[in-house]
Amino acid sequence: MYKIETIDGGVCAAEGFYADGVSAGLKADGAKDVAFIYSDTRCEIASVFTTNKMTAAPIRHFRRYGMFESNFILINAKNANAMTGDAGIDDIDEVLATASARFETIYNPIMSSTGVIGVPLPKEKIKVGIRKFNLRVTNSNAAAKAIMTTDRFEKQTAVRVTLEDGSSFHIGAIAKGAGMINPAMATMLCFITTDAAADAGVLQDTLNDVVTRTFNAISVDGDTSTNDTVLLLCNKKSGMYHETAFKEALEQVMLYLAKLMTQDGEGATKLVTYDITGALNDAEAEIAAKALSNSLLMKTALFGEDPNWGRVASTIGASGVTCNESALRIAFDDVCVYDRGVIYFDASMEARASEVMRRSAFTIACDLGLGTGHFKAYGCDLGYEYIKINADYRT
Amino acid sequence: MYKIETIDGGVCAAEGFYADGVSAGLKADGAKDVAFIYSDTRCEIASVFTTNKMTAAPIRHFRRYGMFESNFILINAKNANAMTGDAGIDDIDEVLATASARFETIYNPIMSSTGVIGVPLPKEKIKVGIRKFNLRVTNSNAAAKAIMTTDRFEKQTAVRVTLEDGSSFHIGAIAKGAGMINPAMATMLCFITTDAAADAGVLQDTLNDVVTRTFNAISVDGDTSTNDTVLLLCNKKSGMYHETAFKEALEQVMLYLAKLMTQDGEGATKLVTYDITGALNDAEAEIAAKALSNSLLMKTALFGEDPNWGRVASTIGASGVTCNESALRIAFDDVCVYDRGVIYFDASMEARASEVMRRSAFTIACDLGLGTGHFKAYGCDLGYEYIKINADYRT
Repeated sequence: MYKIETIDGGVCAAEGFYADGVSAGLKADGAKDVAFIYSDTRCEIASVFTTNKMTAAPIRHFRRYGMFESNFILINAKNANAMTGDAGIDDIDEVLATASARFETIYNPIMSSTGVIGVPLPKEKIKVGIRKFNLRVTNSNAAAKAIMTTDRFEKQTAVRVTLEDGSSFHIGAIAKGAGMINPAMATMLCFITTDAAADAGVLQDTLNDVVTRTFNAISVDGDTSTNDTVLLLCNKKSGMYHETAFKEALEQVMLYLAKLMTQDGEGATKLVTYDITGALNDAEAEIAAKALSNSLLMKTALFGEDPNWGRVASTIGASGVTCNESALRIAFDDVCVYDRGVIYFDASMEARASEVMRRSAFTIACDLGLGTGHFKAYGCDLGYEYIKINADYRT
Repeated sequence: MYKIETIDGGVCAAEGFYADGVSAGLKADGAKDVAFIYSDTRCEIASVFTTNKMTAAPIRHFRRYGMFESNFILINAKNANAMTGDAGIDDIDEVLATASARFETIYNPIMSSTGVIGVPLPKEKIKVGIRKFNLRVTNSNAAAKAIMTTDRFEKQTAVRVTLEDGSSFHIGAIAKGAGMINPAMATMLCFITTDAAADAGVLQDTLNDVVTRTFNAISVDGDTSTNDTVLLLCNKKSGMYHETAFKEALEQVMLYLAKLMTQDGEGATKLVTYDITGALNDAEAEIAAKALSNSLLMKTALFGEDPNWGRVASTIGASGVTCNESALRIAFDDVCVYDRGVIYFDASMEARASEVMRRSAFTIACDLGLGTGHFKAYGCDLGYEYIKINADYRT
């Protein structure tokens, strides 16, 4: 059939893709803060953007093009270019003109931004960054570092898909996450490159499908930003394509990055999978799973490693989905604490459940006992560090 | 016309009402933990309960009666009697039978509980409390103290309504709040007594109406508990009633307690009013206002006294209501920071906005500039103390 293996190279793993990150003086400590991704041939593009109605300028700028090809993405941290009106769009045109003037092979350049809202784009600094770019560099790690805001570590991955006849194609990606990560997308940026020979329409359909089970299934704080962006660039250089393999590989890449974002949620110490089964339908399972991953009471109980299963039941009950206590079953990994009216939660069971909660990753499984609907959501705990980071984000 | 004045007496201010709180050994420190409210004549009852589907036993027990009269409420802290199945209902019958056996004037007794979910009701301790009750005591303060869980202070109030002819009636109440306070009700209990001569139907309609602008307009952490209860007992002893005055007085009592709950939100240091105007309609204004009061990013910015107005705009944009940045206006009390595309947020404006945020109570006013819809929601900040309280609630 086919084989999917993780490889090095990140967003430069696919043939013909280049990337780098440089320091342009946006981050106070002189860290890398402006990045590019470049393909030496034109790419078809699939995209998913925030549902926030105060859409940031870069997204409005992108949408102005309509369906199109491109081969260059410019990304900056520290400034979201959001709530900046038409001037924000003009600023993008000006900055991208600088890039086009410097590199004549650039076609339909795209800009993407993350950072503080409501401050004009620091154009001159970004232009300084552009002057430092070398389009022949393949430093995915530097690009991944440059787009970080409150992220604690850079996020990148890549896979090689080898087909039965020995031919292969690649998918690579970088991403940033940290705060404002929510089931309906959030201040997350993810840039995916592939040399698979996929058609533009297939590309967009596959991305839409996979995003529901990956980036739209994670939550850090329930907020949705003005700038959330997933861009998938496909230059078809491998000449190879296999529908099932491509989708599976893309899901592997995106789920890996989605889980990394959750683990690196601001102040997070744990990655928790909320595995809902037995709901009336998949939609209700999704509502219940996301209610759990967004609940402040759940998140603080996770931080305290307190197996307060009553909060699990209460949160599902509050989510509005069809449920009742006599059909519900709750387990922390393999430790069942409540089973359809029977409370197994004595001192010995509490000790076992507490032990599960001390793990850096575990599953809270809830069977609603009513139907076949299921969904998995991914969340983290919320500790003092989240508040420290967010109480004074701008300074 | 009529006059509404605040008076002492809390839930015992209305004629014929008695209340007390005693220590039954449920709270580890020997504090009061069981309370009663009693009327020496039968009362009509209006009620609003949680929307959580894992409804706690006391609410299911109450609903079993259907429409009815009563004159006695038994309330315990430390145990919610939730997720306890039919045994939880039987436990209530047993405990209330003890009360009925001890006091023959009790009619259709009601029970209400707050505390940890998923632990059987400590019946014997509660019976010990019942044996300490004296139905002739009018100690509203002791009852308000007994129903506290993580509340920092007791919550009670009362008003006298004097009509044009000099006749009067009274409304009094006690409440508890703290965590799980949410626009859709939360682990809050509120017991209101009145000697006004209101009909049962009017009583329920008035309560439903007032609750939307008071208890359903506040948020501490967006969670909705299994036990939320508002009960309004009316013994008609004054013989007096005035529709407009009654509604206004009830709203004054409930809004006062709702704001107290928000101020006493777990770890809260500020009470913030989110005043939305100019929405397409009232429903959209309510959605936007509640999105702001529930946003973790807003709450942490409040805690940090950081006038991050971009988060206000982003949160409204993420709420799904119709809005756009060119029509929006944002002000912190009298300091306008953003006005339909113009950012007023220079260093001097930031200093003024920061000064507003250092106040213990202030308003964030957002005019969406699109219509006449308006709504006020009330929220608080979220600090380290919330996490400390909730990371290990059960111990």
